[in-house]
Amino acid sequence: MTKKLRYAMIGGGPGAFIGAVHRIAARMDNLYDLVAGCFSSSMEKSTETGNELGIASNRIYANYQELITKENALPEQERVQVICIVTPNHLHFAPAKMALENGFHVILDKPITLTLAEAKELKILKEKSGKELLLTHTYTGYPMVKEAKQQLLSGKLGEIRKVYVEYPQGWLSNAVESKQADWRTDPSKSGIAGAMGDIGTHAFNLVEYVTSLQVEKICADINTVVPHRRLDDDGAVLLKFNNGASGVLMASQVAAGEENKVKIRVYGESGGLEWHQEDANSLVLKYLDQPAQILRTGSGYLSSFATHNTRVPAGHPEGYLEAFANLYRNFALTVLAKENGEQVAVECLDYPGVEEGIRGMAFIETVISSGKSDQKWIKMEI
Amino acid sequence: MTKKLRYAMIGGGPGAFIGAVHRIAARMDNLYDLVAGCFSSSMEKSTETGNELGIASNRIYANYQELITKENALPEQERVQVICIVTPNHLHFAPAKMALENGFHVILDKPITLTLAEAKELKILKEKSGKELLLTHTYTGYPMVKEAKQQLLSGKLGEIRKVYVEYPQGWLSNAVESKQADWRTDPSKSGIAGAMGDIGTHAFNLVEYVTSLQVEKICADINTVVPHRRLDDDGAVLLKFNNGASGVLMASQVAAGEENKVKIRVYGESGGLEWHQEDANSLVLKYLDQPAQILRTGSGYLSSFATHNTRVPAGHPEGYLEAFANLYRNFALTVLAKENGEQVAVECLDYPGVEEGIRGMAFIETVISSGKSDQKWIKMEI
Amino acid sequence: MTKKLRYAMIGGGPGAFIGAVHRIAARMDNLYDLVAGCFSSSMEKSTETGNELGIASNRIYANYQELITKENALPEQERVQVICIVTPNHLHFAPAKMALENGFHVILDKPITLTLAEAKELKILKEKSGKELLLTHTYTGYPMVKEAKQQLLSGKLGEIRKVYVEYPQGWLSNAVESKQADWRTDPSKSGIAGAMGDIGTHAFNLVEYVTSLQVEKICADINTVVPHRRLDDDGAVLLKFNNGASGVLMASQVAAGEENKVKIRVYGESGGLEWHQEDANSLVLKYLDQPAQILRTGSGYLSSFATHNTRVPAGHPEGYLEAFANLYRNFALTVLAKENGEQVAVECLDYPGVEEGIRGMAFIETVISSGKSDQKWIKMEI
Amino acid sequence: MTKKLRYAMIGGGPGAFIGAVHRIAARMDNLYDLVAGCFSSSMEKSTETGNELGIASNRIYANYQELITKENALPEQERVQVICIVTPNHLHFAPAKMALENGFHVILDKPITLTLAEAKELKILKEKSGKELLLTHTYTGYPMVKEAKQQLLSGKLGEIRKVYVEYPQGWLSNAVESKQADWRTDPSKSGIAGAMGDIGTHAFNLVEYVTSLQVEKICADINTVVPHRRLDDDGAVLLKFNNGASGVLMASQVAAGEENKVKIRVYGESGGLEWHQEDANSLVLKYLDQPAQILRTGSGYLSSFATHNTRVPAGHPEGYLEAFANLYRNFALTVLAKENGEQVAVECLDYPGVEEGIRGMAFIETVISSGKSDQKWIKMEI
Repeated sequence: MTKKLRYAMIGGGPGAFIGAVHRIAARMDNLYDLVAGCFSSSMEKSTETGNELGIASNRIYANYQELITKENALPEQERVQVICIVTPNHLHFAPAKMALENGFHVILDKPITLTLAEAKELKILKEKSGKELLLTHTYTGYPMVKEAKQQLLSGKLGEIRKVYVEYPQGWLSNAVESKQADWRTDPSKSGIAGAMGDIGTHAFNLVEYVTSLQVEKICADINTVVPHRRLDDDGAVLLKFNNGASGVLMASQVAAGEENKVKIRVYGESGGLEWHQEDANSLVLKYLDQPAQILRTGSGYLSSFATHNTRVPAGHPEGYLEAFANLYRNFALTVLAKENGEQVAVECLDYPGVEEGIRGMAFIETVISSGKSDQKWIKMEI
Repeated sequence: MTKKLRYAMIGGGPGAFIGAVHRIAARMDNLYDLVAGCFSSSMEKSTETGNELGIASNRIYANYQELITKENALPEQERVQVICIVTPNHLHFAPAKMALENGFHVILDKPITLTLAEAKELKILKEKSGKELLLTHTYTGYPMVKEAKQQLLSGKLGEIRKVYVEYPQGWLSNAVESKQADWRTDPSKSGIAGAMGDIGTHAFNLVEYVTSLQVEKICADINTVVPHRRLDDDGAVLLKFNNGASGVLMASQVAAGEENKVKIRVYGESGGLEWHQEDANSLVLKYLDQPAQILRTGSGYLSSFATHNTRVPAGHPEGYLEAFANLYRNFALTVLAKENGEQVAVECLDYPGVEEGIRGMAFIETVISSGKSDQKWIKMEI
Repeated sequence: MTKKLRYAMIGGGPGAFIGAVHRIAARMDNLYDLVAGCFSSSMEKSTETGNELGIASNRIYANYQELITKENALPEQERVQVICIVTPNHLHFAPAKMALENGFHVILDKPITLTLAEAKELKILKEKSGKELLLTHTYTGYPMVKEAKQQLLSGKLGEIRKVYVEYPQGWLSNAVESKQADWRTDPSKSGIAGAMGDIGTHAFNLVEYVTSLQVEKICADINTVVPHRRLDDDGAVLLKFNNGASGVLMASQVAAGEENKVKIRVYGESGGLEWHQEDANSLVLKYLDQPAQILRTGSGYLSSFATHNTRVPAGHPEGYLEAFANLYRNFALTVLAKENGEQVAVECLDYPGVEEGIRGMAFIETVISSGKSDQKWIKMEI
Repeated sequence: MTKKLRYAMIGGGPGAFIGAVHRIAARMDNLYDLVAGCFSSSMEKSTETGNELGIASNRIYANYQELITKENALPEQERVQVICIVTPNHLHFAPAKMALENGFHVILDKPITLTLAEAKELKILKEKSGKELLLTHTYTGYPMVKEAKQQLLSGKLGEIRKVYVEYPQGWLSNAVESKQADWRTDPSKSGIAGAMGDIGTHAFNLVEYVTSLQVEKICADINTVVPHRRLDDDGAVLLKFNNGASGVLMASQVAAGEENKVKIRVYGESGGLEWHQEDANSLVLKYLDQPAQILRTGSGYLSSFATHNTRVPAGHPEGYLEAFANLYRNFALTVLAKENGEQVAVECLDYPGVEEGIRGMAFIETVISSGKSDQKWIKMEI
């Protein structure tokens, strides 16, 4: 019976931020072994990272094509089962496509692809392959975000009426130059959107996840604040949901002095809730005529979805890496159960995948289009 | 030399909220004497309130016309100098007009009038009269709001780029019936706007005060969430300022579980600031590459504008009533100085008046119009 | 029927902090008229303050003896009913004694006297006089402190087991010279205690009020941190209560960087509560196996004691001056009701008086004695 | 060149909390391989855990003696280098002794041993062995705790005068029965102290680490609150430091409603600092005459000690597991550097070891002795 998944990483070489995060997430719960990789377009850098990670030199590859081809040729008990893609956006689709076509499970950093069309194609490929796909929208991995969704599903706060979701960052307030900043502000690598693709999609995913609603219409104010920047670095979006509720989504990378302040507030007929990443282990429930409550990670009164995604007792704060690891863990438990012919718990199945990827790409395309339009409301079409 | 102002109150009878607040504000700094009033359209109720307040029975009047006429007939040393109007919106303009025409200073609760046209007329009357007018936009009376404005004026945070202002309340989440709720949701008394007039104007005033910018264009999503309500109870507004900055204004009275959570965040090129009423004695300054700072009411390092509007040393929290009293105090110091032929300190002159009233009415009219329009951006015209 | 109380103030001349606070507190609810005073030992300064306050010149007195004698000689409808004493500690007892002996109600700033013996004498005089006495321990005037007491009395959190109360300030971190600092660090004016008398007594009063328990034994570490200071500026005290619970009281005036950070936490068998002045409008209730609750000033679910001491709806923060004014208001309502032969509501009677003064003085004497002792526990005797 | 350390675990079988935490900490940074273990006194349970963890069955041992003997017999490239001991307190000393005597590095959960004498013996053994020892006082692994120490060392806040450290928990408010609770309240397994050994030592370690001072004298109030409990479950301790500063240490396991709320505040001549685990990524610096500052994990302005112990950029919260992993990481980097004959960075050497263990045991013995004494101050002797 398989207990751990062998995986390969594409991207995540020297200086990368998110590749290292993926690797920590994969290690946290002892469900993955990193045994192969192609970490950089430079074979030298790729080897450097591979060596550091203790990867056998014959499994450090020159490019993703070689990686997939050669891994595929290995005996089943040896070859990787999962391919994890952490390259800039323009290098998501091709390796993901080839991986699925060759029968590998796929882990992809967000946004899923460069275009909505690619995302839809990936969905078809994924279904054809029978394989699983994880899209790493970190914030939905937090236990108290999961609790928020369950509280709303319980109906306790009534029908949802109003939503505020915000994601202010300040690190692109100047024309910074760094590996991280460069590709994110380059349309050929990032796609049609800057801030909206990088963090707006996180906010969008968070809002649809927590509310279990879908955005139907969008009215966006999209700005490029820093001179000479080629993509948007700021935006605010009015939202209409499929139940009639309205909302506001704010995402900015020029909110100077902010770090990474993801926050969501949802109001129903009889109460509201609030979660923000800076105090990630708390979820505040507010009521019309009773005292607000503070729900805390690790407490006995939480839903199975929160409890399943927590490792330590109440009062021992878990953070970003644990949230990320929850995605990896749930994905592994799902894949392993399926490979071992076991049933998968609903809590494990609760991770973002190709559907969330498609909706994220539709959001990006609609929001950028709305930003350029004189018309107020634009329908989000898929 | 006059030391205190004699004033009369119109409105503020039994069950009123804001009338009592005005009276506390007037008492706080010993600069006013309430000596006359017409507190209700019912003479019985008016007498009840007047008696409670210790007003001589011959100065409790049946209506505002009588009040103004009879006070005007009194000797100068006896008659009131200021008329304070705290009636529902539809009863602001007429008494204010008559008061100015008869040479009284005027204090008006917001919004200034029912329509922009009335507000403009009041401006002309005010200028003609040579009298002063105070519009009680409470939130700009907080010392740390004044500090926020001064910090931004100092240039320390660079040119302003992004603004978020929000004002969520939950008390109209249901079809409540109360003296407070009834007139606010009745177009004949409240005007064309509900939440946008009641609290949206506060948020609007706050944002223009703190930034020292003017809103030029608006794109509004205006909602009536509670069935059968006749006016808006929720809205979100995209803003464009005269320096090119963008912003979001959120105001809701159906954010179930929220009390009165006014908050403003402003971001410049090199940092941002944040103030929220729940922690009114703190102002947070955030910087791109330095630790954030928490500025506190009553501290020695604050601007003269903050210091002037504080009564107690740091660590002794001041709240809503003190902020309100600051408006009254600054208005009184201005009026008294002028009446005594003295110079007025700039800190005293810093209170909202007829200009802010006009801009507030223009905001209301534009925002309601935008809410109904398919066009994205509507210019705010005066 | 008397509606307002005429009062005189002793102390509170130019540069005084607490005198001005008392006057604002007295004005807030329109229940007092300040009509006489002796504001300073210098007649010139006294006259300056008296004039500013609009007091008739024949009722600005040279000293407290003259004040009491001459007021006593005035017709009943004209003479003051209450004498408010806001001088340094060594000038509390004599005027309070004379006031009671001459049939005036008394308001005293804390600590009540210089010694426990004086406090006890005042109790006898007060009882003999049939008059009322208010001791202005401000923190018990906060609505959420009153709610805390009621929550504990309800038994909901079980028998009290553990208490932490703290009062860190930083303003005496250096050898500052100011009117405020000078007398507080001078044994001839302040008594045997510095920080323990000035703020330790507040913490002590708060803890006995909130818990409805009495401290029985004390073990104190009392320090004079700033060189050459003549009185303590810091201390920590282990407490044993009459129900067997234990506690810690911390008070410091050399906690550099702290303003005035009063905080109390109480734990019972099944939960705890927490209140701190920086967030004065919230009371947090914590439970063993349920989410914590945040109770908020102005909410409908609060006890009558909290509601009675609040002026504005939830979400409009009230602060230090309102807490102070609550003491004044409850005292006035009690005195007026008694003078008018009416029954007094229990909520009005809930203000600190001579008993609290005696316990405060016993605390001071025990704590200073414990600070010098090698013995661990010292009984607090009265 | 060795890149990873092979380690064995003693303890940490089914139902254990801290064993799993150690394993996550060891995995986080890819510096350890768990290859052997004796997880329970029951071979069946040990095998169950070993299997789950993928340990070869011939390296799952029946007891620690067998583990050490058999591992020692393996070839150097195969045998474990580090032995990690996560058993209850009474089972720390013997395996640690044997491990050191056989040339293994040791990782020990706190408190180091059952008695001070054992701790001292371990120090001698450790020195003789030339091996390293890590004592897992988690809280000193937090980056902002390290920053706090560096800020104080910089002298910026002046000589330290006052310290408050607190550690309230509520989980032992009732006579709970669980694997976790049982041994902690059993003197034969826990030693002479309950709460003081379990969490008091954490608070003590934190305070000596952050201040770089040593506690010299103690005056303790030690309580057993829950009836029939055999060890203390609550205590408060007055402290005197070797520079003359005073402090208060509070630790309770019957603070009903609290989770695990570690907090430290230190005041120097010109300012203070505050850190609490609930907001672990912030460190607040307070100044006498300037605005307080909020320092944040991951920011560029921090000391090398904070930066070295952080994995992700500012705004991505790190928590308890990362703090724990920092201990593991620094220990591994130190051991690996020494084994590879390289120099060790000072940031890596900054982890708690046998000296901290000895001081912790001296604290336990002094505090329990003081709790029973009528004498006020007891010297902490080693």
